[in-house]
Amino acid sequence: MYKPLTNKKIYLASASPRRRQLLTNLDVEVSLIPPREVDESYPDDLPPEHVAEYVSRKKADAYTHDIEPGCVVITADTVVICDNEVLGKPHGGAEGARQMLRRLSGKEHKVVTGVTLTTYEHGMTSFSTTTRVWFKPLTDEEIDYYVSKYSPTDKAGAYGIQEWIGYIGIPRIEGDYYNVMGLPLHDLFMMLSTLN
Amino acid sequence: MYKPLTNKKIYLASASPRRRQLLTNLDVEVSLIPPREVDESYPDDLPPEHVAEYVSRKKADAYTHDIEPGCVVITADTVVICDNEVLGKPHGGAEGARQMLRRLSGKEHKVVTGVTLTTYEHGMTSFSTTTRVWFKPLTDEEIDYYVSKYSPTDKAGAYGIQEWIGYIGIPRIEGDYYNVMGLPLHDLFMMLSTLN
Repeated sequence: MYKPLTNKKIYLASASPRRRQLLTNLDVEVSLIPPREVDESYPDDLPPEHVAEYVSRKKADAYTHDIEPGCVVITADTVVICDNEVLGKPHGGAEGARQMLRRLSGKEHKVVTGVTLTTYEHGMTSFSTTTRVWFKPLTDEEIDYYVSKYSPTDKAGAYGIQEWIGYIGIPRIEGDYYNVMGLPLHDLFMMLSTLN
Repeated sequence: MYKPLTNKKIYLASASPRRRQLLTNLDVEVSLIPPREVDESYPDDLPPEHVAEYVSRKKADAYTHDIEPGCVVITADTVVICDNEVLGKPHGGAEGARQMLRRLSGKEHKVVTGVTLTTYEHGMTSFSTTTRVWFKPLTDEEIDYYVSKYSPTDKAGAYGIQEWIGYIGIPRIEGDYYNVMGLPLHDLFMMLSTLN
């Protein structure tokens, strides 16, 4: 364990095993709490880059009434922005996932993760981190193989950078790689360090 | 398994478990062959960006005399370039690793992986891929913790981006993340696809 980053007890409210693993990688003590039911909708006129942070705050809202002194609760949301439009998880099963990947194929998109830290003492602090990602032109054969083998229907943008399509299809990113996986570890580590 | 990328049987000549794992992630059939003893020195006047590819060709030289038809042997080398100087693995144990990290702290460096594909039919084809990496200013405490817990003395630049120091210390990269780990998977996949 790295020295306590903060004197608060750290809780992660997330159902995502990847996010849990990422946070554990910081070598800090983390407790998991089950995520609560949240309406993840957002106003139509919210700029796309603000959506993830907005949703992470909505997720945090569910804990503000019963958070205890000395604790910090982390909530997060990740979205993909392509042609200025927010893409969440694909609808319509495998065909929805294939459509989303055809849309990302051969161009740049952004991945934004919004993170909210909630404490009894200070309320909510939130931030978001953006990484630019480039997909090579994907062939139908590559998309079909990936979707049928890896079932990415539970992922924003219908892909995991840490899966086959990320290995063969992404020649370039600009920013924090772990942000694309679901948590901006560098920024989160810095924020936790300043939280007392 | 993804459809055969090439009609050749693919061999990886590397002792690095990370490199083996990375190549396996492409979902292609790979056989491992033990790396052979190679003098990894290079001419003093070789431009730093050419060193990794040069060394990957030297590693490949060891196989050219007994490679069989229908096979491709992959060899690779990774270097870190900081202030236009090539950094390999640190010398001098833990203190050498700490010195190297203090040098990388708070600035940009480049990671270059050179890859050579050798076949009986066509001889050697080689390429190299560069990724730019930024470290935040690292504290002595962070460097000490990382070096004592993760023993990075076997790594070029004395760090693994997929280890604690990479999670907390690298806010930004530009290029292929897997190249920093040791193999430029996108470019290698493309090269293998065109090899027949």
